[in-house]
Amino acid sequence: MADKPSIPKGTRDFTPMEMGRRNYIFDNIRSIFKVHGFLPIETPAMENLSSLMGKYGDEGDKLLFKILNSGDFKAKLSPGELKETPAGKLGNLISAKGLRYDLTVPFARFVVQHRNEITFPFKRYQIQPVWRADRPQRGRYREFYQCDVDVIGSKALLNEFELIQIIDEVFQALQMKVLIKLNNRKILAGIAEVIGASERMTDITVAIDKLEKIGEEGVMSELEQKGLAKDSMDKLAPVLKTEGSNLAKLDLLDEMLNDSEIGKEGLSELRRLMDYLDAEPVDAELQFDLTLARGLNYYTGSIIEVKSAEVDIGSICGGGRYDDLTGIFGLDDVSGVGISFGADRIYDVLLQLDRFPKRAELDTRLLFVNFGEEEVKHIIPILGFLRKKGIAAELYPDQAKMKKQMNYANSREIPFVALLGEQEIEDGVITLKEMESGKQERLTQDELVLRLSSAK
Amino acid sequence: MADKPSIPKGTRDFTPMEMGRRNYIFDNIRSIFKVHGFLPIETPAMENLSSLMGKYGDEGDKLLFKILNSGDFKAKLSPGELKETPAGKLGNLISAKGLRYDLTVPFARFVVQHRNEITFPFKRYQIQPVWRADRPQRGRYREFYQCDVDVIGSKALLNEFELIQIIDEVFQALQMKVLIKLNNRKILAGIAEVIGASERMTDITVAIDKLEKIGEEGVMSELEQKGLAKDSMDKLAPVLKTEGSNLAKLDLLDEMLNDSEIGKEGLSELRRLMDYLDAEPVDAELQFDLTLARGLNYYTGSIIEVKSAEVDIGSICGGGRYDDLTGIFGLDDVSGVGISFGADRIYDVLLQLDRFPKRAELDTRLLFVNFGEEEVKHIIPILGFLRKKGIAAELYPDQAKMKKQMNYANSREIPFVALLGEQEIEDGVITLKEMESGKQERLTQDELVLRLSSAK
Repeated sequence: MADKPSIPKGTRDFTPMEMGRRNYIFDNIRSIFKVHGFLPIETPAMENLSSLMGKYGDEGDKLLFKILNSGDFKAKLSPGELKETPAGKLGNLISAKGLRYDLTVPFARFVVQHRNEITFPFKRYQIQPVWRADRPQRGRYREFYQCDVDVIGSKALLNEFELIQIIDEVFQALQMKVLIKLNNRKILAGIAEVIGASERMTDITVAIDKLEKIGEEGVMSELEQKGLAKDSMDKLAPVLKTEGSNLAKLDLLDEMLNDSEIGKEGLSELRRLMDYLDAEPVDAELQFDLTLARGLNYYTGSIIEVKSAEVDIGSICGGGRYDDLTGIFGLDDVSGVGISFGADRIYDVLLQLDRFPKRAELDTRLLFVNFGEEEVKHIIPILGFLRKKGIAAELYPDQAKMKKQMNYANSREIPFVALLGEQEIEDGVITLKEMESGKQERLTQDELVLRLSSAK
Repeated sequence: MADKPSIPKGTRDFTPMEMGRRNYIFDNIRSIFKVHGFLPIETPAMENLSSLMGKYGDEGDKLLFKILNSGDFKAKLSPGELKETPAGKLGNLISAKGLRYDLTVPFARFVVQHRNEITFPFKRYQIQPVWRADRPQRGRYREFYQCDVDVIGSKALLNEFELIQIIDEVFQALQMKVLIKLNNRKILAGIAEVIGASERMTDITVAIDKLEKIGEEGVMSELEQKGLAKDSMDKLAPVLKTEGSNLAKLDLLDEMLNDSEIGKEGLSELRRLMDYLDAEPVDAELQFDLTLARGLNYYTGSIIEVKSAEVDIGSICGGGRYDDLTGIFGLDDVSGVGISFGADRIYDVLLQLDRFPKRAELDTRLLFVNFGEEEVKHIIPILGFLRKKGIAAELYPDQAKMKKQMNYANSREIPFVALLGEQEIEDGVITLKEMESGKQERLTQDELVLRLSSAK
């Protein structure tokens, strides 16, 4: 009756080695969030399906994991309904809950629900897994972690500036070279306006978002298919060719967007953000990228995307400003801005570049060999003493053969082994063996602590 | 179209204040696990339903949250099947995955699946949420965290001893007084044997587990109802009356269980464990409790349960030895022992006793008042300098009224506010206001760092 053990596709177990590496990423990110005054929250894995549906587009709705209602979930459905209702809709009749798809919508729900307990501007971070019923493939999982940091209740561009500082500090701490791309949705809206296609904003952003992939001709042919007017296309063409420094691009657009209020607002916002970054430069390269659109439609101002400058893996962090995210839950006029770090892709980059520290996690420093009950009695108080000093130490639990115990120390990569046999007990010392060099020393208990604290 | 925001019943949001307190518990537990040489793992929230079903009894099966299959989940079912199949069974036809119910079964699955990568004895810890479709009530949630620590692949009683040390260290660190109850399933099996009712082991343990609640008469009447023989009942009665010191109870049972091999084995194990604890006493009170049975049937040896000595809230930690947990996944003869800390109940006890430290979480130390763009330019480099020194500092992002900014500092409980106006810029100083005393000082940047580092 033994099952062959496995886990659902697209999910992963994390071994101690992987946990050490993941915690290295999370700890670095978390400590930078903290030093900037952001506060942690957590929300439940399950949200009401009504909070999730319709927030991520039709495609997103299909990727939600729904949780079957407990008890007699089909009691209220007639046989006809069971048979006729298509699976998608039927799912909503027999499921009232779903697993969260990202951390942004639960955050908006949290802000509205707790608005009377919160001090605005509310600076929060949240590091939790999310779930998507996507087709699993290399680098894409059905359960993965997001690390989100948002300020809500402030329109100031200083917030965007601080988020860019955070991005820079995180990737400096992780020793990753990155490129930070910036744009502003208002500039994109301005372009749509001046080419006489304001109502085609979504089609235009979706198309130019693909510029890097499909080239200028590809973008134009997509827009033609979507029925964009010839005149508008002609006006758009030079925009796609914009090249040169960030400043040069801004100057060019100044001219082009002179007749668009929203466009000018976008340019002014981007310029002010650049001013902050000129006064206090970051380490990463900054690029004003007019083709950066980001898929999610709730963005209304600044948009940010980060790529590795060393590994081609897509976006490793991104976000932007949203002026009305909480509106979907009934709280209007609360502007926010936030970014999300993709821990799994960052993991893949660090692994590929071999940039994880050798020992990412505090691990056992010392193993006592188990010679038998009599010796164990002498070891137990020494173990307690070492642990009180913060030194992770173990006693091999079984009275196994010496070779087996040494193998354990080796495969766990424990750097020191302590031997406490009859002779040592009589002499009041401990024999300490350094595993790498094989060197042995006879030490008192106090000397042992000193030795283990000083050895790296 | 605004939804009224809420979350599924039995689940919770955690605000920054609650997160600080929860992390205080988790950090203490984690650091003690680490210093004992335990390694972290994580498993996915979703397991294959086949890994979970049948592992927690019929009641447990009903409490599993099932995840509706993506896509056309009813494609392979005939209208007749949809109509006729009872909900419980139909749920298994349209769901292949479920949320984990505890951390023990996923751990057993992990050990079997990764057995070739693991060094045995494998000392692992795991701190993750679990989900149960229980009826929510005070102190019982549908999503809650477990903190599990297990050794698998060693039969030595030294492991039980170490787990009891860990329990003691955790509750000492959290400043909680606890009572640790011990028993051994083999002793219970021995009792069942000598009263001539070996095959009634489960009924007997379930009944005497309730002794504290329903008294001796209640236990006897329950066993009578279950059809236990009169003769067996007469022999069992004196056992329930066993009183006195741990040693006295052991001596009494020595006599009673003289004819039961398994009973004698249980007594010998418990005695050896007590010997370790005599040689290296723990702070908590230890009690040999013959009525401790613990519901889960996979326990085969030592059983452990911890209660608060100050608050009546049920078990806050518990576990035991299991000789064949991995057998359900096809790996036989691997004995393990483990315990699980109930973080939510521990939280409730600490809250009730008002034992959380005043500031559980690193939080913002300093807020810079925002006087305007000109001043902000001078503040930004100072902020960067402070953060590099590890001092959590913020700049109020908006140029709001002084009163609003001060209110923010107050409600966030930020201890210091910095003022950098025209005069300060000219003089090259920063005015620092201590919020509690209202005292103001004019400091250089270096003096500011010193002041903030030294102030508690």
